[in-house]
Amino acid sequence: MKNTNKNPAVPTPSVRIIPLGGLEQVGLNITAFEYGDSIVVVDCGLAFPEDDMLGIDLVIPDTTYLEENLEKVRAFVITHGHEDHIGALPYVLKKINVPVYGTRLTMGIIENKLREHNLLNCTERHVVAFGDVLRLGDFEVEYIKTNHSIVDAAALAISSPAGVIVHTGDFKVDYTPVYGDAIDLQRFAELGRKGVLALMCDSTNSGRPGHTPSEKAVGRSIDQIFRDHTDSRIIVATFASNVDRVQQIIDYAYKYGRKVVVEGRSMVNIIETATSLDVLNVPENTLIDIDQLKNYPGEKTVIITTGSQGESMAALSRMADGSHRKVTIGPGDTVVFSSSPIPGNEKAVTSVINKLMQKGADVISEDVHASGHPRAEDVKLIYHLVQPKYAVPVHGEYRHLKAQAKIARELGYDKENIFILSSGDVLELSREEAFVREKVQVGNILVDGLGVGDVGNVVLRDRQHLAEDGIVIVAFALESGSCQLLSGPEITSRGFVYIKEADDLMTGAAAVAEEAIYHCIETGVSDWNRYKNAVKDGLSDFFWKKTQRRPVVLPMILEV
Amino acid sequence: MKNTNKNPAVPTPSVRIIPLGGLEQVGLNITAFEYGDSIVVVDCGLAFPEDDMLGIDLVIPDTTYLEENLEKVRAFVITHGHEDHIGALPYVLKKINVPVYGTRLTMGIIENKLREHNLLNCTERHVVAFGDVLRLGDFEVEYIKTNHSIVDAAALAISSPAGVIVHTGDFKVDYTPVYGDAIDLQRFAELGRKGVLALMCDSTNSGRPGHTPSEKAVGRSIDQIFRDHTDSRIIVATFASNVDRVQQIIDYAYKYGRKVVVEGRSMVNIIETATSLDVLNVPENTLIDIDQLKNYPGEKTVIITTGSQGESMAALSRMADGSHRKVTIGPGDTVVFSSSPIPGNEKAVTSVINKLMQKGADVISEDVHASGHPRAEDVKLIYHLVQPKYAVPVHGEYRHLKAQAKIARELGYDKENIFILSSGDVLELSREEAFVREKVQVGNILVDGLGVGDVGNVVLRDRQHLAEDGIVIVAFALESGSCQLLSGPEITSRGFVYIKEADDLMTGAAAVAEEAIYHCIETGVSDWNRYKNAVKDGLSDFFWKKTQRRPVVLPMILEV
Repeated sequence: MKNTNKNPAVPTPSVRIIPLGGLEQVGLNITAFEYGDSIVVVDCGLAFPEDDMLGIDLVIPDTTYLEENLEKVRAFVITHGHEDHIGALPYVLKKINVPVYGTRLTMGIIENKLREHNLLNCTERHVVAFGDVLRLGDFEVEYIKTNHSIVDAAALAISSPAGVIVHTGDFKVDYTPVYGDAIDLQRFAELGRKGVLALMCDSTNSGRPGHTPSEKAVGRSIDQIFRDHTDSRIIVATFASNVDRVQQIIDYAYKYGRKVVVEGRSMVNIIETATSLDVLNVPENTLIDIDQLKNYPGEKTVIITTGSQGESMAALSRMADGSHRKVTIGPGDTVVFSSSPIPGNEKAVTSVINKLMQKGADVISEDVHASGHPRAEDVKLIYHLVQPKYAVPVHGEYRHLKAQAKIARELGYDKENIFILSSGDVLELSREEAFVREKVQVGNILVDGLGVGDVGNVVLRDRQHLAEDGIVIVAFALESGSCQLLSGPEITSRGFVYIKEADDLMTGAAAVAEEAIYHCIETGVSDWNRYKNAVKDGLSDFFWKKTQRRPVVLPMILEV
Repeated sequence: MKNTNKNPAVPTPSVRIIPLGGLEQVGLNITAFEYGDSIVVVDCGLAFPEDDMLGIDLVIPDTTYLEENLEKVRAFVITHGHEDHIGALPYVLKKINVPVYGTRLTMGIIENKLREHNLLNCTERHVVAFGDVLRLGDFEVEYIKTNHSIVDAAALAISSPAGVIVHTGDFKVDYTPVYGDAIDLQRFAELGRKGVLALMCDSTNSGRPGHTPSEKAVGRSIDQIFRDHTDSRIIVATFASNVDRVQQIIDYAYKYGRKVVVEGRSMVNIIETATSLDVLNVPENTLIDIDQLKNYPGEKTVIITTGSQGESMAALSRMADGSHRKVTIGPGDTVVFSSSPIPGNEKAVTSVINKLMQKGADVISEDVHASGHPRAEDVKLIYHLVQPKYAVPVHGEYRHLKAQAKIARELGYDKENIFILSSGDVLELSREEAFVREKVQVGNILVDGLGVGDVGNVVLRDRQHLAEDGIVIVAFALESGSCQLLSGPEITSRGFVYIKEADDLMTGAAAVAEEAIYHCIETGVSDWNRYKNAVKDGLSDFFWKKTQRRPVVLPMILEV
């Protein structure tokens, strides 16, 4: 790092931090770092749709700012392989085709994704090792080893002539990780000693006191469960991407002489990828095919499965529903949720638990999980090592960002040096000053099937209205010119009432529509929109009075 | 209680317990007790709709069994005034108009409800005091004082010649309640000493170890909050029906010289009812109207409000959204959630918390609540006092019922004497034997606006389909007889794509529809359903290929 400004009298240059998502919601993590004519983008995640985004498959960030500054964008620099950090890449790369950097497993997962979207051959990809420094325009980006609930997670030291910004990515401090080294705290300290302009630190668990337990602690719980349930088949549900967790389950299965079946598409995929990259090590003769289950007594097998979030289509839910073709749950089963419910999934998870118990299974759903995010004391450690001038809490809901800001205040940071940003804020930082004066366009782009961005507020509002009270369609034919009623009104509905048992209502509705049409004809109305409005208003009133519901009323006129 | 059978050689008579809801879900509590030609019904609750019950307002139980045995039904005997125990009364009373019994506040709340439904004058109502014994056909029903998160909650001792059944209702063991006496444990003991056939005990918290804390413990937390926040306005959100909680908030407000504003319709209603019945005592000059807020400094006021569950239309949500007309949230506010999220509401609650914090408020959402249901040690106490022959865990999800069954096992009950029932099961009990051999009709009846039961699976499935991908309507006019295409096809859609930006798609769709119609005409098809199917199939394929969505496709033919 060359520093172009050694003279403190001359203002130092500034760097711009522009989060394009991720600060108002969980997911959609993407942040642009801009200096001069260089932009480096950290992560490119998706978000899962909110409850009111009916029919939407996923949400990606609005990257208009990057598209408008396309010639500046040097790379996507990815911290780790979770969907909320990589999931939007296949969509965004189509518009912003720049090189993608990531560690080994991260890139393995990205490549699976690009392959699905037929983008593998047209995307420049670079696998990065910890300690590597990328030179990207005016930026140098160093990969620093961390720990997280996925292997190969990294923090980044992002240097420009304005100074060094440390971005932790998602991390935890784990002195006894399952795979690879513990977080490189020495490097954080070294950077801190040299001087760090800003720290962008994971806020997810900032509101929780103490330290996040090691992944190894989960192993001890798993060990105990194997020792306590020597008579049962054991089924463990966890996040597919938590390779360390899967490794531990396999290790204990091996220790206790059980064969392992892997079930659920995403679980099978990740195990293949992780094994091929040597970050997962399966002892020989341990994995068996699901069709071989019947050849072993239940107490000699373990099933590792997806569905720990109660996802209705996942393998575990199908087992709970009795609709899984290969696994039947019964009194001989112990089902372990090695996970905790992501906010919003609580009810789906307990519903699966109830169904499993109704089939006679024992269910263990507590204390077999450790978070991948730092709690308050871990956050303090990182702040203390890095000692940044500015604190920029990232990754979390507002209350989590606020909790980290409170920690920073406790550590002695001035209010003016702590920035809780909103997506789109342009934070300009130099050694002298820091401020947000500008805002760039940000937003949620909704993906529905093949459509990217074609479902907007109008369509969502219609879907909500349709979901609430259904739709009534009134079709009739008018003679062109004379406005004579040639046919109809024909009335039908969907999602409103059960038509076969609502004869009276529909007959009444037809009469109301007919009256509205004839009233228009008799008063010489020739504007068809007025016909439509008359029918719509008449029927809306009629249905409200009769049912206190407000279906969408859609008149259609055919001109003959 | 006369026992008609003193000779143990002759089999004793049996009583039938028939839960008509409440065992597969939270809510919908209603249980019939049948002996000879007498049926007594305990509670008559509603359930709130599940996520997939789109547009549904509430769910009531199928009471076909009671309707078929109308002449036997003697009364509704209500344990307490929560919606999941009384909410279906206005609907069910229309079909089964028998007397309703309940304690003072319970009846006060029921009467408000009947008044809204214009049923007050045609319903026979009886206010019951603790210790009262009702004679209802072959049954005697005694009201026993308990504690719960609503005042005036009761357990029931239901006696018939077959023996005594103790039904706890929803309860907790609170030695230091805020209003009235502690639970009448002596009466439970007395009944137990004389001999109890079966205990139906609240299972909600059976899976949690230890004892449920007293409501008074919450008071101490509230006191602490008032002492710690002498500079802020304090806004407390809680359940409207928790009169004791409201009492404590008012008492501490008075102690610290603050005026109290009550906000939210259900909060205002319950406070009126509770005050008029003397179960809530508001010191003079403490309540002020919301319009007077501006006349007092914030630190001299407390607002008690609805919305502790994040309900989107409740007062607190409107404050958080900035759309409340009288209360503006800012940095001078401390908002207290004196509640815990009901399963399924977690995300809505945290969303409100985030919004309040974004407006600068301090939010306290933990440790200001105590549950109204017994934990494991409380359950053991009741079992030990009552010492029933049979254990019938009630009120809770399956995992909760199972947790109570496990407690009963630990207390030495045989597996054969513990019954985890499903709704509709007919449990026949006598001193010699107990079994389930019969099942009666049960189910969810959906209420949507004025419609009770007119929305069934077909309509719900349509709503889900509409919500997912919207609807496309294709109208065309055919000449009757000749099947000539006179007009159309006109295509429009709702909730599918934004039509103004989907010209190509809709033009393509019109061509596909036209082709399908002409193909029918040319091949001499005269059955209009075949026209409809051809258009539907053609368009469904077309849209799937173009968008990977499956809107409802609805063809409408007008005959001219």
